Amino acid sequence: MADKITKKSENISSWYNDVVLAAKLAEHGPARGTIIIRPYGYAIWEIIQRYLDAKIKSFGVDNAYFPLFIPNSLLQKEKSHVEGFSPELAVVTHGGGEELAEPLVVRPTSETIMYDAYSHWISSYRDLPLKINQWNNVVRWEKRPYLFLRGTEFLWQEGHTAHATHEDAIDMTKKALDAYVDTYQNQMALFGYAGRKSESEKFAGAAVTYTYETLMPDGKIVQSCTSHDLGQNFAKAFDIKFQDQNSENQYVWQTSWGLSTRSIGVLILAHGDDNGLVLPPAVAPYQVVIVPIHGKDGDHEKIGQLSQRVFEVLETSSLRVKVDSTENSTGWKFNEADLQGIPLRIEIGKTEIETEKVKVVVRWPETRDVFNFGISELAQEVEKLLDTMQKDLLRAHKDWTLANTREVGTYDEFKEIMSTVRGFIKAYWCEEAECEAKIKEETKATVRVLPFDEEVETEGKCVQCGNKAFRRWLFGQSY
Amino acid sequence: MADKITKKSENISSWYNDVVLAAKLAEHGPARGTIIIRPYGYAIWEIIQRYLDAKIKSFGVDNAYFPLFIPNSLLQKEKSHVEGFSPELAVVTHGGGEELAEPLVVRPTSETIMYDAYSHWISSYRDLPLKINQWNNVVRWEKRPYLFLRGTEFLWQEGHTAHATHEDAIDMTKKALDAYVDTYQNQMALFGYAGRKSESEKFAGAAVTYTYETLMPDGKIVQSCTSHDLGQNFAKAFDIKFQDQNSENQYVWQTSWGLSTRSIGVLILAHGDDNGLVLPPAVAPYQVVIVPIHGKDGDHEKIGQLSQRVFEVLETSSLRVKVDSTENSTGWKFNEADLQGIPLRIEIGKTEIETEKVKVVVRWPETRDVFNFGISELAQEVEKLLDTMQKDLLRAHKDWTLANTREVGTYDEFKEIMSTVRGFIKAYWCEEAECEAKIKEETKATVRVLPFDEEVETEGKCVQCGNKAFRRWLFGQSY
Repeated sequence: MADKITKKSENISSWYNDVVLAAKLAEHGPARGTIIIRPYGYAIWEIIQRYLDAKIKSFGVDNAYFPLFIPNSLLQKEKSHVEGFSPELAVVTHGGGEELAEPLVVRPTSETIMYDAYSHWISSYRDLPLKINQWNNVVRWEKRPYLFLRGTEFLWQEGHTAHATHEDAIDMTKKALDAYVDTYQNQMALFGYAGRKSESEKFAGAAVTYTYETLMPDGKIVQSCTSHDLGQNFAKAFDIKFQDQNSENQYVWQTSWGLSTRSIGVLILAHGDDNGLVLPPAVAPYQVVIVPIHGKDGDHEKIGQLSQRVFEVLETSSLRVKVDSTENSTGWKFNEADLQGIPLRIEIGKTEIETEKVKVVVRWPETRDVFNFGISELAQEVEKLLDTMQKDLLRAHKDWTLANTREVGTYDEFKEIMSTVRGFIKAYWCEEAECEAKIKEETKATVRVLPFDEEVETEGKCVQCGNKAFRRWLFGQSY
Repeated sequence: MADKITKKSENISSWYNDVVLAAKLAEHGPARGTIIIRPYGYAIWEIIQRYLDAKIKSFGVDNAYFPLFIPNSLLQKEKSHVEGFSPELAVVTHGGGEELAEPLVVRPTSETIMYDAYSHWISSYRDLPLKINQWNNVVRWEKRPYLFLRGTEFLWQEGHTAHATHEDAIDMTKKALDAYVDTYQNQMALFGYAGRKSESEKFAGAAVTYTYETLMPDGKIVQSCTSHDLGQNFAKAFDIKFQDQNSENQYVWQTSWGLSTRSIGVLILAHGDDNGLVLPPAVAPYQVVIVPIHGKDGDHEKIGQLSQRVFEVLETSSLRVKVDSTENSTGWKFNEADLQGIPLRIEIGKTEIETEKVKVVVRWPETRDVFNFGISELAQEVEKLLDTMQKDLLRAHKDWTLANTREVGTYDEFKEIMSTVRGFIKAYWCEEAECEAKIKEETKATVRVLPFDEEVETEGKCVQCGNKAFRRWLFGQSY
């Protein structure tokens, strides 16, 4: 398969599409913009889910399930929310063979349907905080679909909480963002910048949106997840009030936050190479593939036995491992393991039988280090190699992101960078929407994020208009 | 809360509705027939999911995800399938602000969209068996919604496999059914009859449908899950062929099988009593609730400490346990624990501090056995009590189902039973659709299942028409 893949350096979009299809991660569904997540892609999602779900539960958040269909009238309640989502909605007009009196919107996100319920459930400070998460599918009509990265339907989790104070709500948005940053860094080995969005880029209905922005190899940037401080915007629209300890009625403070299957696209795009996927060991459905190499003489049985023994040794150590015992050629198996981005390949042939040491080849980095380990030390050494690869992948992505984050002083520099290497640009900005719009028009770059460590005010001049500016934001071209 | 619940013996539908709402398992969503599954209800689903997912994976079935939207043209491909589902469809006619050229059906089940993909994925015997499962939401327009039991949208898993031989496919349907029976019996403590459906009651598009039918307290019967031998019906409609080892093209043999959130409704209905839910320990989100009982003198701190210690002892033994440390009265807490169906209640007050033994009260049976255990023996004794309750609940449901399964020889007896106590009736039936329709019209009873142990042919007379009949089927009124 590997020879059919476009080179990543030649055309990254074609490479991406080729790899996703060839590695059987996903393919397009029959309805425009929809995606079939195949078992290998879904296995990565299950690993991400398991990790993140435990984190979410550790915050005292409970899972639940709200309906797919939202009556149109509910969606209309928060003005900026409906304005933001209107162009992307899928609408059910017929049900059970009849035209519906009121059209139903297929959820693009669940704020409105959940907060309608919250308004019934919350009446006293004793009912707070209310913290609910759901793992589900959402639909947002997409005119330029891109497997995993942009789709009409995607899978995600959406957490929705209500609190007695703004402070508690802000704390929750930060906790959720921290959980995402942890998942991206320690599972997906992806560095990024965490911080807040500009007014024009925030979620429709939010007071403040926090984000984690990750740089892709073509110099463009992905918004990898978001966590919203909703203030009291929805509380007022849905009349969600509680009686506080002094018997006074107050509106609740709310948050919502989500991470989606888009993350799988980000991780493929960032780490893969000309041979296919490179999966960080923590999210790899198989961390090790064992390839028995049968020569012409009669070691067939011994090779099979040693392969099985190695499989058992590694599985006992809770590693995710498989034996490729198909009828394909050894070369084909190696290519396939590379394509699937399996972190380690163990080769077992005549030599390994004789020496009682097995050959371990790493998928990444490209130098492809080779090791020989005896069975007694194998599990431990394999774990070390996986651990090292996990850390090195993150470090490589971090180093590369930092190298491609450029602080500029003049608008000419800004334009020059955005028309060539792109990446992140750090610059003072006056925080005026007009200026932001002009930058976008002239350079295709948008304001991506104000990193948390740039929140302290300093003084400088806006890179575009030259007016006074107090903070350095990160700019870049969006995926 | 408990005093607002209708008595189960007085009106089981009102009781059911009251309990589901009061125990905060679920409530109706704003769009007709939809359901909000609240955290306590969803926690039960997560437990069922975890158990069943491991079983499904043990069969070599992989999880995946297929799109929610099915183009209408795809759905039309298998004639009896579309005929069966047409009256229940929800249809998206508008997306992204425009009317769609082709309406999209919201999946009522995923045979058509999955098998369209299977037809591309399968070309050789090496591609078989193909075994995929998905956990998702489906929509079937429901005119008489009933929380969990009948809904416009529900959650389920649907497994879909393709095989080289009919034998392999039949084996898969049986394995799936066995996994369901195991889950119902050993997790939900629900006895039932496993076997096959009559021609008129089988799934739209199936060759044979297998089912597990469970008896409810009002004498009606629930189809608790199904497993379908699809034969080559869909293979022919979707042109799913493979080249066999002799290079001949053959159609694959397929299966599909599903278990849904309906199971939660079945378990509530079967086990609950006038005080609320009775949850089998295996699926109870909390298996033990600890209630600190603070008197007027100064043992407050000691009671709190012992409660915490008991909590830790039980949690360390992997039991699901919580302490009710709310400000509510002890009576309220007891009622709430009963309502939530928590299998064991541990009381810790002045006496328990003095004796260093804690009081354990069982939720079921109604005789409410009481025990006193020292801390050192507590975890072990609690596990024993939970284990006993789990087994006894199943035995009770089995004994009661057997007692309400009546073999009849005459149609008069049949009618008499169906107009009074209902339950299962076992009777010879000629297997003619005309006869089946007449029975349904006159008694409201349908053919529920031919139990596996009744498959061997014997000879008798059809209970309705008196013609020769070879097998005894189970009849009953459907939920």
